[in-house]
Amino acid sequence: MNKRGVLIVISGPSGAGKGTICKALLEKHDDLYLSVSATTREPRKGEVHGVNYYFLTKDEFRKRIDRNDFLEWAEVYENFYGTPRSSVDKMLDEGKNVILEIDIQGALKVKENCEDGVFIFILPPSMEELKQRIINRGSETPESLMRRFTSAYQEINYISKYNYGVINDKVEDAVVKIENILVAEQCRVDRIKDDILTDRKEV
Amino acid sequence: MNKRGVLIVISGPSGAGKGTICKALLEKHDDLYLSVSATTREPRKGEVHGVNYYFLTKDEFRKRIDRNDFLEWAEVYENFYGTPRSSVDKMLDEGKNVILEIDIQGALKVKENCEDGVFIFILPPSMEELKQRIINRGSETPESLMRRFTSAYQEINYISKYNYGVINDKVEDAVVKIENILVAEQCRVDRIKDDILTDRKEV
Repeated sequence: MNKRGVLIVISGPSGAGKGTICKALLEKHDDLYLSVSATTREPRKGEVHGVNYYFLTKDEFRKRIDRNDFLEWAEVYENFYGTPRSSVDKMLDEGKNVILEIDIQGALKVKENCEDGVFIFILPPSMEELKQRIINRGSETPESLMRRFTSAYQEINYISKYNYGVINDKVEDAVVKIENILVAEQCRVDRIKDDILTDRKEV
Repeated sequence: MNKRGVLIVISGPSGAGKGTICKALLEKHDDLYLSVSATTREPRKGEVHGVNYYFLTKDEFRKRIDRNDFLEWAEVYENFYGTPRSSVDKMLDEGKNVILEIDIQGALKVKENCEDGVFIFILPPSMEELKQRIINRGSETPESLMRRFTSAYQEINYISKYNYGVINDKVEDAVVKIENILVAEQCRVDRIKDDILTDRKEV
């Protein structure tokens, strides 16, 4: 029997570095799979259906919403974006471990739909550092910068909805912590109990 | 501020190999501390108070029971054995990670007294292997052997009361899993939340 894979949700405030961490994790581990989002926006040059996004018509997207086929979805500037439940489930059923990189609002919706997911909140080393990172991204007016920072500051409250918090001081260290979390989760009694008690009956 | 250490309870049926695993963990990690039990039995030659056991009189032991100073205790052949709460708490408060090796009945009592402990159930690779290990220990009559095996078989049901299950196929592999579990536990939101939300206020 294939052991079900683990869904690892990497989330946190903007500027905490979740994208860099996911990239490093995927480069390091052939056996980790990135969840591919669906969208109704037009493909950009070089983007491949099923690799960068699943490109859907608005009609098809709405049908899938009605079929409850999204772990989460949102409408942004007249386009839809979402995480297809069926493709994530398929990978998990095949025993694959799946990484989902997503903002906090999205993660909280996923949590409602996926109880056995592992929710990891990526934290900046300090609030001072987060401010610097947002400043360094540039192209922000002082007002939008302040708004982004205030939002990140408030978003950290949501950590209490997550299972783990990982401080992104050095990317390599954060990656090692997430690797450890995955090994630990694979030992959690909730995930292995049924197999153990079945195996025992075979003697 | 000193971050509170983690209490790691290594438990499981007799023959699963919890002793070997604890020994290997302690040899590998200077920063792990073994919880020392208290007993009313006489010290054997070479045994040192505070190292092998805390040797107490029955009077002193009973007083400590009344003061609720044991995470668990039991009476075995007219002697008392127990895990002193105060010495474990002192180490945890100093930020030390503490290993407690204990049978299943003891672990379940500790769990009632120590909610933030990490309860790890050590499993034999298979029930067939467990039978072999019990047989290989020798000096058992067929009846006591059968009794021990039946007891181990039933005890595996208690895994559902634990946080993690680790199969002791190779000792080194089991040790690595427990190391990963410790790192993961140190990232658990319940353990770090207060620090994170306090740190944030300092900006």
